[in-house]
Amino acid sequence: MFDAYGTLYDIQSVADITEEAFPGYGDLITQVWRIKQLEYSWLRSLMRRYQDFAVVTRDSLAYTLRALGLQYDEETFGRIINKYLHLDLYPDALPALSALKDRTLAILSNGSPDMLNALVANTGLDRVLAATLSVDAHKVFKPSPEAYSLIEEQLDVKPADVLFVSSNPWDACGAKAFGFNVAWIERVTPEAMALACVKSDLLPPLTLFKALRTQMDALGIEVDHRIRSLSELPKVVAFHES
Amino acid sequence: MFDAYGTLYDIQSVADITEEAFPGYGDLITQVWRIKQLEYSWLRSLMRRYQDFAVVTRDSLAYTLRALGLQYDEETFGRIINKYLHLDLYPDALPALSALKDRTLAILSNGSPDMLNALVANTGLDRVLAATLSVDAHKVFKPSPEAYSLIEEQLDVKPADVLFVSSNPWDACGAKAFGFNVAWIERVTPEAMALACVKSDLLPPLTLFKALRTQMDALGIEVDHRIRSLSELPKVVAFHES
Repeated sequence: MFDAYGTLYDIQSVADITEEAFPGYGDLITQVWRIKQLEYSWLRSLMRRYQDFAVVTRDSLAYTLRALGLQYDEETFGRIINKYLHLDLYPDALPALSALKDRTLAILSNGSPDMLNALVANTGLDRVLAATLSVDAHKVFKPSPEAYSLIEEQLDVKPADVLFVSSNPWDACGAKAFGFNVAWIERVTPEAMALACVKSDLLPPLTLFKALRTQMDALGIEVDHRIRSLSELPKVVAFHES
Repeated sequence: MFDAYGTLYDIQSVADITEEAFPGYGDLITQVWRIKQLEYSWLRSLMRRYQDFAVVTRDSLAYTLRALGLQYDEETFGRIINKYLHLDLYPDALPALSALKDRTLAILSNGSPDMLNALVANTGLDRVLAATLSVDAHKVFKPSPEAYSLIEEQLDVKPADVLFVSSNPWDACGAKAFGFNVAWIERVTPEAMALACVKSDLLPPLTLFKALRTQMDALGIEVDHRIRSLSELPKVVAFHES
């Protein structure tokens, strides 16, 4: 069971579009946007004011552009949002899914059904996935247990029989707290490499904030596996089957 | 009813201690720490893994120092944490509370009872507050409705009769969603002033991230009052009583 955004799909691939639309702001927009997109999903879940991820994604982009003092028209806004339906797959995604094609492979994502179905179809993953589950069915976002409970409910697989794969530290922790076997994929971004090699006060803060996104959180949870590439998954699966 | 951290108390006042302990890192530590402190409170609430705010505050500081590659000993760590019991009051806090002393004044905070009781006593607010409520009684953090419901439960005041005051946009939105009258205080920090005056791509990202904390969020909620200083509160109260 795979998380989508950040795990199979590179959400940073939006930066090309934002940079084209707002030269000099591309990276900054994607960083603020992602922070707010996550915050709004958690806050709306806690406030019992669920709106689907398409709404949260638009609201957080509108906040970002407004807060940064950027003027925009409908067409530009729509072009940026549309990239969420055409995100780049990470290079290790398709080979790993192909190597595991005799297992039941699926996505559980915060994305709305429309967003996910379009994204999966546009990138050809519909041919390898048994299911694409959206938390929208329970109207609450990960890491709420009600979101993770969809897997047993819709696929009839017990939590102990699930291997959940996510690059998002908070998602990996939530999945482990729920009772899944969890592989956290530490995406070794250029920013994470920089943080590992350079004293953090020498990094530009934007690089630093991007690097911090890849660090495991201190939520009192230990995941089962830490991997650096999805290509390690067959080994992890073999471990659980032995 | 007042939020504590960021509303009556200046959490940025921790930066003097962090700068002294880690020269060159003071501001950076407080920014990352605050982001993670909030994230962990929301994530633990969603994951049903509540630990009180003292634990969340320590865990998020430990994450911050580790992620920034900073070595520390117990004594240094303790000295930083201890500042949370001695935060500076904003200059407008005591005058505003005094001006409203014939009303029932109280705090509802994410802080643990021990943290709040020490902070309130250390700063003399115990002499003007009727109550200091901690979400710990319901083991869930704001903006969950169960946190805000403590006010009616413990003080026997209906939501419609509460004026809730917070500088935190997410808290103001959560309180409004719950049914309180809400005054959001926009703290006009030097960073917020800079963002209002300078193109955002010309600001150092750390300044920008600090400025963004003061911007109202796009959560589909309209608060009742936007104020710039707690000194405006008597006017707001008079409006509701007329």
